[in-house]
Parts: sequence; C-alpha cells; structure tokens
Amino acid sequence: MSGTSLLSLLEAEAGAFVSGEEISRQLGVSRTAVWKQIRKLEAEGYEIEAVPRLGYRLNGRPSRLSLQELLPKLVTREFGRRLKLFDDVGSTQDELRKLAEEGAPQGTLVVAERQTQGRGRMGRSWLSPAGKGVWMSLLLRPEIPLPLTPQLTLLAAVALSRAIARVVPLEIGIKWPNDLLVNGKKISGILLESSAEDERLKYVIVGMGISANLDPEDYPEELLDKAVSLKMASGQTIDRSRLIAAVMDEFERLYDLYRDRGFAPIRSLWEAHSVTLGRPAVLRTPQGTVEGVPVSLDESGGLKVRLANGETKTVFSAEFGETTGS
Amino acid sequence: MSGTSLLSLLEAEAGAFVSGEEISRQLGVSRTAVWKQIRKLEAEGYEIEAVPRLGYRLNGRPSRLSLQELLPKLVTREFGRRLKLFDDVGSTQDELRKLAEEGAPQGTLVVAERQTQGRGRMGRSWLSPAGKGVWMSLLLRPEIPLPLTPQLTLLAAVALSRAIARVVPLEIGIKWPNDLLVNGKKISGILLESSAEDERLKYVIVGMGISANLDPEDYPEELLDKAVSLKMASGQTIDRSRLIAAVMDEFERLYDLYRDRGFAPIRSLWEAHSVTLGRPAVLRTPQGTVEGVPVSLDESGGLKVRLANGETKTVFSAEFGETTGS
Repeated sequence: MSGTSLLSLLEAEAGAFVSGEEISRQLGVSRTAVWKQIRKLEAEGYEIEAVPRLGYRLNGRPSRLSLQELLPKLVTREFGRRLKLFDDVGSTQDELRKLAEEGAPQGTLVVAERQTQGRGRMGRSWLSPAGKGVWMSLLLRPEIPLPLTPQLTLLAAVALSRAIARVVPLEIGIKWPNDLLVNGKKISGILLESSAEDERLKYVIVGMGISANLDPEDYPEELLDKAVSLKMASGQTIDRSRLIAAVMDEFERLYDLYRDRGFAPIRSLWEAHSVTLGRPAVLRTPQGTVEGVPVSLDESGGLKVRLANGETKTVFSAEFGETTGS
Repeated sequence: MSGTSLLSLLEAEAGAFVSGEEISRQLGVSRTAVWKQIRKLEAEGYEIEAVPRLGYRLNGRPSRLSLQELLPKLVTREFGRRLKLFDDVGSTQDELRKLAEEGAPQGTLVVAERQTQGRGRMGRSWLSPAGKGVWMSLLLRPEIPLPLTPQLTLLAAVALSRAIARVVPLEIGIKWPNDLLVNGKKISGILLESSAEDERLKYVIVGMGISANLDPEDYPEELLDKAVSLKMASGQTIDRSRLIAAVMDEFERLYDLYRDRGFAPIRSLWEAHSVTLGRPAVLRTPQGTVEGVPVSLDESGGLKVRLANGETKTVFSAEFGETTGS
C-alpha cells in the first residue's frame, strides 16, 4: 500500500513539487525506494515530472482505471470491496459468473477497461471501447424469492441514475425497465442475469455499461441519434473511479433500504425518475403487442399499462415500438 | 436402425424361437449379418438363446437403458426427441446446462444410468446408484416472464406423478412444491434450475430423479423411513424405458396445455394431487417461519397459508418443519 501513500502525497500537493527527501522522510523509505515507486506509477500511466533539487510533481493521471485510484474512493461496506480489474475481457458478465459459481461473495465487482464481447439485452452486442467507459458487473446474492427478481432490475436503474447525477450535473430519465436516458438518448445499459434453483435465487449478476467519456467518433454512425456519452452530454470528462465508487455507494444504500423496507421506497424513487409513465407507448411482448399508457409499477416490478378500452394490463418483458401517433 | 428391427422381431415372438433364416429374410440381410446383430444385442445386455435348427429366442433384457428400447416407446413431438444417454455422469443437470448454453433446443433430454454427484434441493446430494433409477434432465425454453417460473415447478410435479401412475398402480401425493410421496415417503425429487436475462427466461433445466427399482439395501439406514422406491412400494420391477417415455408424454401434453390455456388447469391438477393443502404445517422460509394451514396456490405458484389470526400469507420458498401438534 506504500504506492498509494506516495500517490496521495503527490496529489496533496496539487501540481507543486515535492522533494525526494521529503517523500523519503514521510514514507519512511530510502530515496532509491521512492524512485522505484515513481517508476511504478509512471508505468501505470501517471505523468510525473522529476526536476533535480525540486523533486517530483504529478502532471497527469492515467486514463486507465487502477486499484490505487479506485480503492480510496470506495466508501461501501460490502459492494465493490472484492474487486477484479481487467484490461481486457470477453465480457465482465462471464468473468463474474465464473466467480459466482466458485462461491464469490455478494458485492464482488468485476471491472474491465475494454470488453471484446460486451453484451446488451437480448443477445445484442454492447459497444465497450477501451479506456472510455465503465463496463462492470456486480454480484448479488439476494434472499428474495425468484418472482421478485424484476424488482432488482428497477433498483439497479435507480442506483445508477442517482450515482451518475452525483458525479455530473445531468438530468437522467429511466425508461422502463432500466435504460437510462439524457434528452432521450441512451447513456447506459443494465443487464441482470439470474440463476435460480426452484424458487430460490442462487445469484444475480448486474451488468452495467456507462458510456462515460466516449467521443462522437467512438460511435458507429447509426447509434449517434440514439446514444450519447456523459462527456458529450455535459462537456466534462468524467472521473471514472469516482463514478464507480458512487455507483457502489448508491447501490449498497438502496439495497440495504430494499432489504429493510421492501420494494415500496424503491418503486417511489423509480417512478420519480421515470420517463415512461404517462406517455402513450407500444410495447412488444413475447405474448403480443400491448398499446396504451403506462401508469405505474406493480408489486413485482411489472409495468401496468392502461389500454384504450380502460382495462389495465401488466407487462413483464417488452420492447418499445413506435407509437402510431394520435 | 436395423438393430431395432431385429429386437422387435424377437420381441414380437414373446419368448418363442425365431429361425435365423426367417430373420434374415424379414430384415433382408445375410445370416452372418444377423449373427453380428445378435452379438451386438448380447453385448448390450440382452440375453439371447441360440439353438441350432430352432433359431434365436429373447430370454432377458438388459437392466441398462438403451436408445434401442427407449426410442420406439417415445410418442412425443419434441420432448425427449433429442436424447443423450450416459452410463456415468457427475450430474445430468450439469451435462444439460452445457448443452443449453451451446443452444440445444427445447425438449433435449439427458439420461444417466448413474450420477456420481447427483444434486437435490439446496445443494443436498441425491442418491443415484447405477441401473436402478431414472436420473434425467429435460430442457425447456419457455416464453414466459421470469416471475411465472414457479408455475413450471408445479407443472413438473403433476407431469411426473401422472406418468408414474400410468406405469405402476400407486397413489401418489404431491407435497408442495414438488416432492412426490407414496404413503408419506418420498419416491422422487424434482429440481428446476433456471437462467434468465432481465425478465426473460433463457432456459429452465428440469432435473428429475425417480427411485424406480431401488432395493432397501440401496438406501442408507437413515433414509429408509423417509424414502421408498416404486419397486419397494408396488412389488413390481419398473420398466424404466416405459417410465421415461411416459414422463416425456405427460410433460409435453401438460406443457402444451399450459401454453394454450395458462396456469389454471395445471393448478387444478396440482391441487387435486396435493397432500399439502388443508393440513397444518410449519414452513421455514428465508424470511422466517410461517405456521398455518396451506389453503391454495396463488397465480404465480406460491402457497397461500391461512395463519392462526385468520390472515393469509403467501410463501414462495420453504422447508417443512415439524408441526408443534394440537
């Protein structure tokens, strides 16, 4: 952990030089050891200027995520405390599933700089270029019966939208069940994979993709009117470590709340962020198309839709189609 | 498939001799080819008596399951039509899960003579000795929303109990959700493992263990007052191929019914076979103990229990405890 201390020393000086002697004294190590740690930080992508007699100055941070940056920002009890950081994976979901099958505890988090086979809903691929997004999967072992799993899908959407809003000033809307939108464009995707034996959930893997610092040239042409990054929407470069820590914090708080008080408070938060309720919609479900106005969530997280004939129908799984107008 | 024809020829004569010449003529193959097929059947465990001038007679069948015996008994459209038969596996669930992840179609069935790591509910092991039971796993790809999965658990129990009753005259009771009992002793276990993405089921693997021809000496002492085999309960040796074919048939019929008419008819059948409804019970759930009288199933397959104070509580997952009496 001495690497962390050197980094925090340099960070504390905010762009000023710290002498090697001072560092050596504060860390209680030799100047040779200080120099070795500096080299290690540089290898991780930190830009450190070394000037004789003045010492060392931190000029730039790596765009890569590092445990050194991430761990000090975590304020959670459990979520993200077991953390695996990959440069390159097929998909964080698959990596975490292996860990889950081997008995990894709740809160285990897998984060990757890049996914080569990132997955979205319904087997679609998910754009996950290196160094610019937050691609991660969180392990839950909820003691809830299987039929309540959809509540976790909604909880995840609320956690993510609250965390993002803490890091960057954007108005985020939730499209049922868990797409996050800014001005109607998608900034994030969530995919829950669950495994159950009879009515008992074995685990749930919450996959989260947040388009943090993607630039327009990172998107294929056809996605540009449907998707946007936090950076493009806000003009700010996002500190991804801070964002990950915020997601873990919000997720753990909401999960505690859910465990203690049930779904009601989660539902209220979801409904407050929703851009789906009250707007006419065409919902394509495996059982056929449902057209009407979504009015609320039901107890198990389904979407209640008021049909033209005044009846109410609950939808559990659907794609949004184009409304026919009127 | 010529092996099947030779076998059916011998079976059609029901214990009488069929001459080699007759077989050769009917199958349109040489007498040497007939002799080779006879040897093949013997290698699979059939006892065939060969007497000069008289010909061949089938005296005994293998205790091993074979595709030759099983396939002609299948009357289904889809269930069991893709079939993998193993002598020895860790668990049929794990074998089928691999196939499911590779895209195997609905109805794929894995059957094993013996499981070395047979699993029951909640990670308990499941006794699966060679040659005496039916240990198998069936793949479903249901187009139902995740919260309705428990309905399939109940459907499986109904299918299994109806199939068994077709093969052996026993009165079978269903203990919620899916234990099958004869005179209060367990004859079968069912374990559904499901995998979902968001609200969409990817697949469900229905594990079924039927203690068909186990003898008392196959059971550990402590199981003998809780478990019994069909053979012990009825005095008859069970034709396992016929039993497997009957399960596939009943399962497919009920599954079709479920798809066409929903859960209501399945629920009625389950309730008719139930030994749980109307009897005071102590149910240990992950959320605490519930004591009362189970009165019916709810829409999603949960068990509605009437408490002492007159209220009704729905239980989704529980172990039965000892009642305190009264």
